[in-house]
Amino acid sequence: MVKLAIDIMGGDFAPDEIIRGVNLAMETYDDLELTLFGDESKIQSLITPNPRIHVVHAPEKINMGEKDPISLIRRNKELSLVQTFRALREGLVDGVVTAGPTQGVIVASHLIVRRLLGMKRVALCPTLPTFAGKSRLLLDVGANIDIRPEHMLQHAMFASVYMTETQHIEKPLVGLVNIGAEPGKGRELEHEAFELLSHSPHINFYGNVEPKEVLTTECDILLTDGFSGNLVMKTIEGTAKALGMALKEEIGRNIWGKIGYLFMKKNLQAFKKRMSADDVGGAVIFGVDGIIVKAHGSSNAYAFSRAIHQARLAVLGNVVAKMKEKLVVEDE
Amino acid sequence: MVKLAIDIMGGDFAPDEIIRGVNLAMETYDDLELTLFGDESKIQSLITPNPRIHVVHAPEKINMGEKDPISLIRRNKELSLVQTFRALREGLVDGVVTAGPTQGVIVASHLIVRRLLGMKRVALCPTLPTFAGKSRLLLDVGANIDIRPEHMLQHAMFASVYMTETQHIEKPLVGLVNIGAEPGKGRELEHEAFELLSHSPHINFYGNVEPKEVLTTECDILLTDGFSGNLVMKTIEGTAKALGMALKEEIGRNIWGKIGYLFMKKNLQAFKKRMSADDVGGAVIFGVDGIIVKAHGSSNAYAFSRAIHQARLAVLGNVVAKMKEKLVVEDE
Repeated sequence: MVKLAIDIMGGDFAPDEIIRGVNLAMETYDDLELTLFGDESKIQSLITPNPRIHVVHAPEKINMGEKDPISLIRRNKELSLVQTFRALREGLVDGVVTAGPTQGVIVASHLIVRRLLGMKRVALCPTLPTFAGKSRLLLDVGANIDIRPEHMLQHAMFASVYMTETQHIEKPLVGLVNIGAEPGKGRELEHEAFELLSHSPHINFYGNVEPKEVLTTECDILLTDGFSGNLVMKTIEGTAKALGMALKEEIGRNIWGKIGYLFMKKNLQAFKKRMSADDVGGAVIFGVDGIIVKAHGSSNAYAFSRAIHQARLAVLGNVVAKMKEKLVVEDE
Repeated sequence: MVKLAIDIMGGDFAPDEIIRGVNLAMETYDDLELTLFGDESKIQSLITPNPRIHVVHAPEKINMGEKDPISLIRRNKELSLVQTFRALREGLVDGVVTAGPTQGVIVASHLIVRRLLGMKRVALCPTLPTFAGKSRLLLDVGANIDIRPEHMLQHAMFASVYMTETQHIEKPLVGLVNIGAEPGKGRELEHEAFELLSHSPHINFYGNVEPKEVLTTECDILLTDGFSGNLVMKTIEGTAKALGMALKEEIGRNIWGKIGYLFMKKNLQAFKKRMSADDVGGAVIFGVDGIIVKAHGSSNAYAFSRAIHQARLAVLGNVVAKMKEKLVVEDE
């Protein structure tokens, strides 16, 4: 059984869509055992009864605009997010899934679950939308504003273990996001990281990857600092949204567009689906002692069920234990 | 007359497409007087004869992959790029247009044309594709890897003058590219820049702009450091390309897509045009004593003619002289 704690109260459409996402995941996978933390009466009214589901009443949530999640998380042990993470720390579950605010999730990861011994920094790692037949990890996208090359190497190692154990890619190819493809490009951080990564026996290093290639590169893993990664991720999001709007505008401009749309409606829906993050699941927190999946704040039931699946794969792949072994090797 | 020096040898499709671009610009604007630097026999075979065109034989060019443009530009005075920039320095023209390699253009700007007195750093400033009815400047996208808040303020001032004098926007709205919209987000650079920009009487500051808004924000100018700006710009480019490919794939997948395409072909072409950089012209180098427009390396004739138009507007708007006045005010 894959035991996960689910934060029912986090996300723009919580708790309803989150509970429906749980139902969907339970229908799809028969190896899940889920403990739901949230408003019990709400859960009971929407959940499909199942002996593999446990409910803990924890109706308090962090607001999306919370200015000071650190002190709130320290202060309020009743928060559904806090209770979910405590279940992980106490070993009652192997992972957690939440659509709560990113900053709160990172803080709770640090304060409640804690970093793995030897792991210097955690990373927030989403999966980019699938293009050219594959999906790619991008990290860090915001857990660290400042980062050192040695942190990036650990992130690359963690991401490699994750890709191997969840996607069965034997030697995942790791690229360094940079403003030019040639060695020697970028800031001092990129110069030093390039050196370190290219000499490490623990990863399969490709070299620099320009951001215009991030969606189509042959790399499986794209490394960068949290500030740059956040910029890249949000620029992809914004560009996709703006282009989607422009496409809609151009098609709606005249009768020919509207007729054409009637014919290719399904094709355009498939295109829209490729741009959406729903299939991907969520971002994983790498570097803590347990699997933490942060689902998108705007998750609907389907997207949340995919995030549960993502946590499930990471637990089944035994990702954290495998990374612990690597950290021991690195220390020797 | 707007006097410009044109580098005929720079760009992937030089010299043919560049010369055709010159013809197109000359047909469209009757206030241009152009001096072309390049292979004279090639120019004579393709150019539409016109007394407002002068030709200087300068057939040598910088290769796109040149490893050391600095010493090449120092060493080789015969390069078409060098001769074009020298014409600007000597006051024979008011501006230059080139599709040569970006790094070479930045180096030549520094070494040959020189920074304006009081201007601490130059900036490379492209115009983003037009969405929601307007175009926006993004700077710096690569002239400076490291940058200080006071440089960013000067960049904002220069960009504001440029927008006012070429686009007739009275008080252009300046946004700071950042990983969150709230004040206090980002690195120390963004914290300090936010402080400085929000207290400057020289610009109309909006606040932070997340990258997911860069194509749709109400801001006219988006400020960032050269590394981050390059990431954002290239991520937009790469995302647009990947989505364009995905759209084509989905439409080509079955007969309904193909029939629909026959109806909405023009709509989809208009969509594609919106994603392309051809209309925009090129990136402008801000901070040097003259107008320098760096056209896209892959410029076709139309795109290059738009880059000439962009330089023309900046010369007509007297942008450099207006900025000189601002620099004096700032020093007082």
